[in-house]
Amino acid sequence: MTIELFFATNNKGKVKEAEYILNKYGVVLKPIAINKIEIQSNSLREIAVYAVKSIYKIIGKPVVVEDSGLFIDALNGFPGPYSSYVYKTIGLKGILKLLDGVIDRKAKFIAVVALAFNDNVYVFEGSIEGYISLEIRGDKGFGFDPIFIPVGSNKTFGEMDIEEKSMYSHRGKAFKELATWVLNNKDKLFNTE
Amino acid sequence: MTIELFFATNNKGKVKEAEYILNKYGVVLKPIAINKIEIQSNSLREIAVYAVKSIYKIIGKPVVVEDSGLFIDALNGFPGPYSSYVYKTIGLKGILKLLDGVIDRKAKFIAVVALAFNDNVYVFEGSIEGYISLEIRGDKGFGFDPIFIPVGSNKTFGEMDIEEKSMYSHRGKAFKELATWVLNNKDKLFNTE
Repeated sequence: MTIELFFATNNKGKVKEAEYILNKYGVVLKPIAINKIEIQSNSLREIAVYAVKSIYKIIGKPVVVEDSGLFIDALNGFPGPYSSYVYKTIGLKGILKLLDGVIDRKAKFIAVVALAFNDNVYVFEGSIEGYISLEIRGDKGFGFDPIFIPVGSNKTFGEMDIEEKSMYSHRGKAFKELATWVLNNKDKLFNTE
Repeated sequence: MTIELFFATNNKGKVKEAEYILNKYGVVLKPIAINKIEIQSNSLREIAVYAVKSIYKIIGKPVVVEDSGLFIDALNGFPGPYSSYVYKTIGLKGILKLLDGVIDRKAKFIAVVALAFNDNVYVFEGSIEGYISLEIRGDKGFGFDPIFIPVGSNKTFGEMDIEEKSMYSHRGKAFKELATWVLNNKDKLFNTE
């Protein structure tokens, strides 16, 4: 039996990475482009839970959202939950400029996956520590990938293929958690509908 | 007859500036600290309307919210609707660093006031063009006031008293619009409850 879950996102990079993980577990994602409500909050968890609830209310089927962010120590966690907006406005160069001359380049990527069904919400989190590179390197991945070097590697995410990135990535970890949970709870997930 | 409106905000600076305007019109604001839902959007209008509707649903009385932002041309509108978060993380110095060596320092402050009552929402907008100063000047006002110089002045908002700031300010303009509307529609506003 194939397990199918809706995935509410407009980001093709996220779909690719999520599918790369979930396919190994026999879980199939069906992307839906739906206008999800993202609230302003310092907590990715709060944002993801609110969004997935609002979508579940509309579609009434098991659905997943993912929210992620880059949290830079020397910038008090900026850009955090607003990473996508910051990427589109000041971009990679803006972040490098803000860190110009800054020695502490520690940063963390966090991903939160929220699954809603039958009025329940389950949350899975993944994170990876690393640091911000001195220059833009690579053109793979998306968003801030070309300036983030995970601990344990000397490549940026932008220099990694999806296989290699998934070994380290916050998103990979969160979706592995989701997959494991889904496989252990498939009866619950599909009998209660 | 005194007209009273709830004002949902946790920002004392906003309360002070709004009261300064509204008192001249005989409109009294009653601040309430309520956890308002702010969505992520590039449109202040969308954020304010969503927030005021959600609060009206809870309190059921005429209520006002205000959302504002600083939009910097050379940064593609950054920090825009996320001005408060950006102020708390990278701050005034972060903005000045991003604009280091940038000749085009044009910026705009925009404020949107949304009033909800009886399932209607009315929106009032004010804006002021200006530019980002080369250094931090003054300690009045709040947020990005000490680095914003409105067209027509050579002071930053941080160097102005509330009287002077209100003559120029986006917030002053939006609340004047609200006050005028309220005075012209007080029967509608208080008889339909």
